[in-house]
Amino acid sequence: MKIGFVGLGNMGGPMAGNLLASGHELKLFDLVDAAIAAVDDQAAVASAADAARDVDVFVSMLPAGKHVRALYLDEGGVLDVVAQQTLLIDCSTIDPQSAKDVAAAAAHRGIEMLDAPVSGGTAGAQAGTLTFIVGGSEAALERARPLLEVMGANIFHAGVNGAGQTAKVCNNMLLAIHMAGTAEALALGVASGLDPGVLSEIMKQSSGGNWSLNVYNPYPGVMDGVPASRGYQGGFLVDLMAKDLGLALQTARESGSSVPLGALSESLFSLHKNSNEAGHLDFSSIQWLYQPDLKP
Amino acid sequence: MKIGFVGLGNMGGPMAGNLLASGHELKLFDLVDAAIAAVDDQAAVASAADAARDVDVFVSMLPAGKHVRALYLDEGGVLDVVAQQTLLIDCSTIDPQSAKDVAAAAAHRGIEMLDAPVSGGTAGAQAGTLTFIVGGSEAALERARPLLEVMGANIFHAGVNGAGQTAKVCNNMLLAIHMAGTAEALALGVASGLDPGVLSEIMKQSSGGNWSLNVYNPYPGVMDGVPASRGYQGGFLVDLMAKDLGLALQTARESGSSVPLGALSESLFSLHKNSNEAGHLDFSSIQWLYQPDLKP
Amino acid sequence: MKIGFVGLGNMGGPMAGNLLASGHELKLFDLVDAAIAAVDDQAAVASAADAARDVDVFVSMLPAGKHVRALYLDEGGVLDVVAQQTLLIDCSTIDPQSAKDVAAAAAHRGIEMLDAPVSGGTAGAQAGTLTFIVGGSEAALERARPLLEVMGANIFHAGVNGAGQTAKVCNNMLLAIHMAGTAEALALGVASGLDPGVLSEIMKQSSGGNWSLNVYNPYPGVMDGVPASRGYQGGFLVDLMAKDLGLALQTARESGSSVPLGALSESLFSLHKNSNEAGHLDFSSIQWLYQPDLKP
Amino acid sequence: MKIGFVGLGNMGGPMAGNLLASGHELKLFDLVDAAIAAVDDQAAVASAADAARDVDVFVSMLPAGKHVRALYLDEGGVLDVVAQQTLLIDCSTIDPQSAKDVAAAAAHRGIEMLDAPVSGGTAGAQAGTLTFIVGGSEAALERARPLLEVMGANIFHAGVNGAGQTAKVCNNMLLAIHMAGTAEALALGVASGLDPGVLSEIMKQSSGGNWSLNVYNPYPGVMDGVPASRGYQGGFLVDLMAKDLGLALQTARESGSSVPLGALSESLFSLHKNSNEAGHLDFSSIQWLYQPDLKP
Repeated sequence: MKIGFVGLGNMGGPMAGNLLASGHELKLFDLVDAAIAAVDDQAAVASAADAARDVDVFVSMLPAGKHVRALYLDEGGVLDVVAQQTLLIDCSTIDPQSAKDVAAAAAHRGIEMLDAPVSGGTAGAQAGTLTFIVGGSEAALERARPLLEVMGANIFHAGVNGAGQTAKVCNNMLLAIHMAGTAEALALGVASGLDPGVLSEIMKQSSGGNWSLNVYNPYPGVMDGVPASRGYQGGFLVDLMAKDLGLALQTARESGSSVPLGALSESLFSLHKNSNEAGHLDFSSIQWLYQPDLKP
Repeated sequence: MKIGFVGLGNMGGPMAGNLLASGHELKLFDLVDAAIAAVDDQAAVASAADAARDVDVFVSMLPAGKHVRALYLDEGGVLDVVAQQTLLIDCSTIDPQSAKDVAAAAAHRGIEMLDAPVSGGTAGAQAGTLTFIVGGSEAALERARPLLEVMGANIFHAGVNGAGQTAKVCNNMLLAIHMAGTAEALALGVASGLDPGVLSEIMKQSSGGNWSLNVYNPYPGVMDGVPASRGYQGGFLVDLMAKDLGLALQTARESGSSVPLGALSESLFSLHKNSNEAGHLDFSSIQWLYQPDLKP
Repeated sequence: MKIGFVGLGNMGGPMAGNLLASGHELKLFDLVDAAIAAVDDQAAVASAADAARDVDVFVSMLPAGKHVRALYLDEGGVLDVVAQQTLLIDCSTIDPQSAKDVAAAAAHRGIEMLDAPVSGGTAGAQAGTLTFIVGGSEAALERARPLLEVMGANIFHAGVNGAGQTAKVCNNMLLAIHMAGTAEALALGVASGLDPGVLSEIMKQSSGGNWSLNVYNPYPGVMDGVPASRGYQGGFLVDLMAKDLGLALQTARESGSSVPLGALSESLFSLHKNSNEAGHLDFSSIQWLYQPDLKP
Repeated sequence: MKIGFVGLGNMGGPMAGNLLASGHELKLFDLVDAAIAAVDDQAAVASAADAARDVDVFVSMLPAGKHVRALYLDEGGVLDVVAQQTLLIDCSTIDPQSAKDVAAAAAHRGIEMLDAPVSGGTAGAQAGTLTFIVGGSEAALERARPLLEVMGANIFHAGVNGAGQTAKVCNNMLLAIHMAGTAEALALGVASGLDPGVLSEIMKQSSGGNWSLNVYNPYPGVMDGVPASRGYQGGFLVDLMAKDLGLALQTARESGSSVPLGALSESLFSLHKNSNEAGHLDFSSIQWLYQPDLKP
């Protein structure tokens, strides 16, 4: 297949690389030349519009809704130049409303589009083991599936356009809540004399169990191979979780929902970031907010 | 073995019944005659002190720390009449400090004691499948183990005296957080157009997974056999969760810990209880706080 | 002076009426014909652009940032047609970033602009006693002052462009916090046996004193002439407070600030709105969230 | 009058000193000899019971409910030795339930008692300008008034026994909320480019006004003579506010009230205390939690 790919950062770069490696023909564009070179200089084209012309599938991976809106909707943008039979896949994590608006504009011109935000981080992008949460029609998803399976290991169909973004936002808000909640429960136990490993084991096997506790324990030294056991380096950055919580609050406002625990989690990660200069640490470092004495 | 058992309510009654059924000799006391009769009238004694005299093991199951303090510490209470070789097991869910104080008073007289709060509800009490979270010495736990195995299926050793209570408090605070968080995430998704079942499935298999979502889904109709699918009848009552969250806040205060998500969860369950007259519903009914339109 | 005025709703209508009554010449536009007619049909012009042409001052009063951006920045919009010496005054309550962006675009063309959001409600708009919180240059404010004094009683200069919006956002977030906090403290006192009037009087004269308690008591029957004493009719609607809290959270996100109490207040007003169908009640009706038994 | 006085710490010492200075005859007791000596060695008696015998009025000023319970209710305690016509005044800040219990025990023996917690700090204690918030009968308050007027400047009658404690708890919870809320609003404004002094002035004159903003501004340098302008030394310590918030949460639990903003404020002051080692700073230092860059 001929594939246009725009946005070749830490995530988009390896994703495009996996598509190339599986034998597809790519047209690559990024505002940063070095990002293109890191994938394949030979495949470079001169603009995003060029990448969208004359391809079977067009993939984008950008930082925020405003970038996605500009890429697709601006005069001379992707929707103005892309062929009607091209399938559009936006893998950016953005606000659901932007995803809906862009997909509606595409549909208005008879073009199929999917929102397909990912989780799994840069490691998953490189290994081709990402999780895709997809919004759009069943038929469009089936067209995309072979490519998504090159880049990822799990593919969920959340619903109509925008539903991929909404489902990711809901999931990551819940993740933030149980990560901070787990750190809070462990800190309470330790301050009251418990061993964090013993308490973790008890809660894992009881009704306290959750993904953060079970596979990503935030307490230093309790679990091997997780960020908490290497100074919170790598992993899923506080800055990225903060971005996702911002999207959750925006989505809540737009749907008239109350998200008190999500909103408080946003505040806690923000306090943590500001107090502990933690933006570039893994998000499980929220443990420090509860136990400043753990800081090096 | 000869066993004294005081406190024969919804939990204590069936627990004592299981001990009787397994061939032990019991001395039963409760302030409510009918509660004794419901287990075995023949085994009734005239007072808590009588139940504590001349037994191998003495078990108590009472509502709160003040009752436990009075039972054991008052003049003429259990510690004044019990033989030194009797093992004391308090299965009440109470504040850790009371558990520590009573055990220290027992130790002062050379008597071994365990705090062994349970989870699993009345169904677990009847079926003998409770989970015990135990604080006290390894040796005392080994003495108690045969009896605990009659009443329960899982036994965790959390640490020294009081640690059983502390671990239960931490676990249940985390449970409250991820239950309310799960309800919040599902409500956000539904208000934004997602199907609650589809969203649940995606989050279960992603990083949002947690006990509440995985085995106790709070959204009506998503999962069979849980309280949410039978009008939130039965299960673990809002009133009991409120009690446990009160213990969590008290434990936090006594240890100088910050528990912002635990404290907010306490407020949310309290708002839910007062707004929706929900004290006697299962705690997963917190879904109603987020979606008043779900109320019948 | 010749004044263009766009946006003649509950607030803008009476504001324009006061300018007319003080002898100025107006050019009025609103998307709703009846809104123009309610002020003065004679002064109607055919479009917003027409209202902006050939005037000394141009005033706008619109619902949200996107409307303000469109009015001023769209092709053929105000900035494309207005004379360079015209002073622009936007009285809308919008996000500070939109205010900054529009003022920067105006400055780029050599046009002076002020953001001048108001408080005081429809009663203040009619009586000409509004409070203006102004962002922009000192010089521009002096040019505007004679008109602002026709429409309002208090004029504050908050700083450069956007500062008027930021200051209003900060003020209203703090207002939401102490209104909900006051309702919470009164509910706690009443549930513990105190008289709400006696408690109010004590706190007013002590360190609990605040605007909500002192002049806008949320408890029914404690203070004459406030919404709480007329079933929470009139006043400052929950829906409007919810809008302002949304702006506060957005402003916090854009500035990397933590606003835990503001975020929780947003959640509480949202829960109140959804649980009690309270969007069109005065915001002091938050008392009902704490005391459902007060509901009629 | 003959007055017994027990508890001569930072508050009780100067209060007793003012009573002495106004010509009353005192019998003083404290567990710390130096505390008695700091007031008047000549007036020392050997025990709390001695201080309570043969006096017209007995005053206590102790740290917590458990100390008050022990002083009055223990065997051989004040209630066992005091004359029936002696008026009891407990000026400690304690949980309302303890105040009610002790007063009920006194009433049972025909002895009148008041709970009369104070605000105004050590400066107010020395200057005799404290505020008393009193629970008990009107008649008992009239008996006490001449003495209270020696020690204080404002006297409020909150209601029956315990009401003084409840009203103080409500007031101080509201104070914590608007102090933290004020710090939060100022931090939001400053991060968005406003001057803290200008923003303070605008909010003071608008609906954001509150005691913290108006007379105790938490932002360094905005207001003269407040703790914020002297490195948060002196004033009302974070540790004491934390104690009062603990009483508020306990009171809420006992009355079945929801106090989400009070609970979050407790968490914020606790995070501040732990992160910034702020227990012995004035409570307006909560500004640091929002702006770590302000820390020296």
